[in-house]
Amino acid sequence: MVAISSITLRRARRDDVVVIVQMLADDPLGSARERLEDPLPASYFRAFAAIEQAPQIQLMVAEDGDGAVVGCLQLCILPGLSSQGAPRALIEDVRVAAHCRSRGIGEKLVQWAVAEARGQGCRLVELLTHGSRRDAQRFYARLGFAPSHVGMTLRF
Amino acid sequence: MVAISSITLRRARRDDVVVIVQMLADDPLGSARERLEDPLPASYFRAFAAIEQAPQIQLMVAEDGDGAVVGCLQLCILPGLSSQGAPRALIEDVRVAAHCRSRGIGEKLVQWAVAEARGQGCRLVELLTHGSRRDAQRFYARLGFAPSHVGMTLRF
Repeated sequence: MVAISSITLRRARRDDVVVIVQMLADDPLGSARERLEDPLPASYFRAFAAIEQAPQIQLMVAEDGDGAVVGCLQLCILPGLSSQGAPRALIEDVRVAAHCRSRGIGEKLVQWAVAEARGQGCRLVELLTHGSRRDAQRFYARLGFAPSHVGMTLRF
Repeated sequence: MVAISSITLRRARRDDVVVIVQMLADDPLGSARERLEDPLPASYFRAFAAIEQAPQIQLMVAEDGDGAVVGCLQLCILPGLSSQGAPRALIEDVRVAAHCRSRGIGEKLVQWAVAEARGQGCRLVELLTHGSRRDAQRFYARLGFAPSHVGMTLRF
């Protein structure tokens, strides 16, 4: 049992990529999209390098008291002209390891992201959650998010 | 009458900021959020400078045959680990000047963004459109977007 008090958040490192991809793949929607091979395809590490080089992007992980990575979240803080030029925050790829759910880890990650966005002058935090993820929608509503928009996607 | 054949797309310049903000403000949702003053608040120009410095972000305008700016779109191409590390595209702030609507300008902007995203290796283009914008939802559906997600927002 992971106590929420023992959870710390930190920036992801290159050696976290495998466990992050495992969390992304451990999901009805994600499993078809990822390639969880050993070794992991190089495209994941190239993407990680691009994330590290982008000052607008923070890929965070939640670590338990034993140093195991049990959650992740990507926060992008993007400049834009609307809302008087305030930057906008986009939250993506929120995942918590299956054996650690319902313990407040996702909430801790999202609340960190909201506070970080606010601290960087954002007036808006946005995210897309698949229409089938009703539990995720309830989770975000509990944290103050409104289901105000339709999230439209085009996949190639 | 603006002929779609005379419309060209180009990167926005600093001297386009006023007309872009006018388009953002000319909207039931945007009017309350913007400050369309003369001179425009400096925050808009600071945001424009941040956009220009971010290699992931392209703020585009549509220009008619007389050089007037009649539309805009912001495209962000963001690295991320999911989908095997393929970058993801986010479209924001799509606007067409009121007197130039229904002539294919928005479609030209969005199709440019989709082609650019594909060319940069994205497998997903996503956007949020307000639940009340039914015409926008039909427009994106016609261009191949699915209303697959709930777009959740938190405003400060």
